[in-house]
Amino acid sequence: MRDEATAFVPGHITGFFSAHPHEDPTKAGSRGAGLTLTDGVEVTVEPASESTVVLDGEEIAVEPVTTVLETLEVSARVEAESELPLGSGFGISGAMALGTALAANDVFGRRLSTNELVTIAHGAEVQAGTGLGDVVAQAHGGIPIRLEPGGPHENVLDSIPARARVEYVSFGELSTADVLSGETDRLTDAGQEALSRVVEEPTLPSFIYASRLFAREAGLLTGRVQEAIEDVAAVDGQASMAMLGETVFALGTGLSDAGYEPSVCSTHPAGAVLK
Amino acid sequence: MRDEATAFVPGHITGFFSAHPHEDPTKAGSRGAGLTLTDGVEVTVEPASESTVVLDGEEIAVEPVTTVLETLEVSARVEAESELPLGSGFGISGAMALGTALAANDVFGRRLSTNELVTIAHGAEVQAGTGLGDVVAQAHGGIPIRLEPGGPHENVLDSIPARARVEYVSFGELSTADVLSGETDRLTDAGQEALSRVVEEPTLPSFIYASRLFAREAGLLTGRVQEAIEDVAAVDGQASMAMLGETVFALGTGLSDAGYEPSVCSTHPAGAVLK
Repeated sequence: MRDEATAFVPGHITGFFSAHPHEDPTKAGSRGAGLTLTDGVEVTVEPASESTVVLDGEEIAVEPVTTVLETLEVSARVEAESELPLGSGFGISGAMALGTALAANDVFGRRLSTNELVTIAHGAEVQAGTGLGDVVAQAHGGIPIRLEPGGPHENVLDSIPARARVEYVSFGELSTADVLSGETDRLTDAGQEALSRVVEEPTLPSFIYASRLFAREAGLLTGRVQEAIEDVAAVDGQASMAMLGETVFALGTGLSDAGYEPSVCSTHPAGAVLK
Repeated sequence: MRDEATAFVPGHITGFFSAHPHEDPTKAGSRGAGLTLTDGVEVTVEPASESTVVLDGEEIAVEPVTTVLETLEVSARVEAESELPLGSGFGISGAMALGTALAANDVFGRRLSTNELVTIAHGAEVQAGTGLGDVVAQAHGGIPIRLEPGGPHENVLDSIPARARVEYVSFGELSTADVLSGETDRLTDAGQEALSRVVEEPTLPSFIYASRLFAREAGLLTGRVQEAIEDVAAVDGQASMAMLGETVFALGTGLSDAGYEPSVCSTHPAGAVLK
């Protein structure tokens, strides 16, 4: 058994999605598309007599992480450092679950394949209600299009062959669990329509246009988010809302051009990796 | 139309494989496993009135590249710079085909998805007989396990969740087309057995062990290659032969420890990317 192992998992901004529930959490998930980010979460796993989870120095409860440890039948100290805010649409809980699975497999010599580890993390995230598609997107990297929902044994993925500078501003949190436990019919209709558009034309301009339409039609825009998207449009930029958080993201220099002071990163070419 | 676009495609060393012919080249391919490498090929595509292909400053004919350009209905100057030798088991022809597809899609605004571009490059490579699994592995990155053959709409991929320093020495060329056009029954049996082993235990030690067994059982070892593998084993290192080239690769410092002066790189965490 090694002393510790560390994985880096890119953040993931979902531009649009449709929810696809299933009683088996490894088959449940979402269709949609998003951007994986060079800003992400570094997760270090170290064997311990009792499991604890620490994010940016503070002990917290993250249900999918606990489930991953239990599934792998290990107890460990999980320490995560994140460049991204929690609860704001960057897939932090998914990143922590996936990073824990990869690092724990390594440090405890569990000998599972990548697909098996992604399945465990995806299932744990779905079961906790904290996300539906972040984990498979974060395992893939790039700008993933989730054509069919579920874990790696079920889903179908494609991607947009491009990369981009990404800017973002977070105004606050939205609860993924609250939105997903509510009425999702309208959201799912809008998500399917956005997906058709991006499958027809898998480019960045088409992705951000479809995302903006989705945010509006799904009724998820808050006042501040709408205002920032309009500000970016006023300077000929392209922005939309991160699903699900009170966060605006833009391609290129959209938010800075509009006078905001955004965080800046890029799309991440690779999926989650052991360091 | 942009002036030019550049893609980087990682090299790919196949450790073992089994051939799976099909009359449709996008369904034909191989099962197996390999290492994608930080050493690779940079491919730049620039619109031109007549198509030409240049590798490391010299004009050459690369059938899969020509096929990719024809499929995309473009004529272009394709300029490739490679850190790896041609014909020695690093998937250079596949890398050039895939890099051409990604860069040409970008520069000519063809609006195809990643899976579509990989399908085109994979089909072109299979049709030319220059490779069966490099393109899908190079699009994936990491240490891909090819569970089911074919392009992205057909295949099933998994991977070994690890990374490694890789050393390699090339003694000369072997013709993939010659080996693949010969009797492949023995090779395919050995490849299936190696795959079962790696699926059972998806780790680096199991991959290199299965690869070595495959090289021996498939009857592909040359004298120089066998000698180098034994030299590495004598210093407790792990090495095998790159399929298909007269090339020995080792994990960690196996070849240097054995007194060779190898090229050194690492497994590449990402698949092919636009720069």
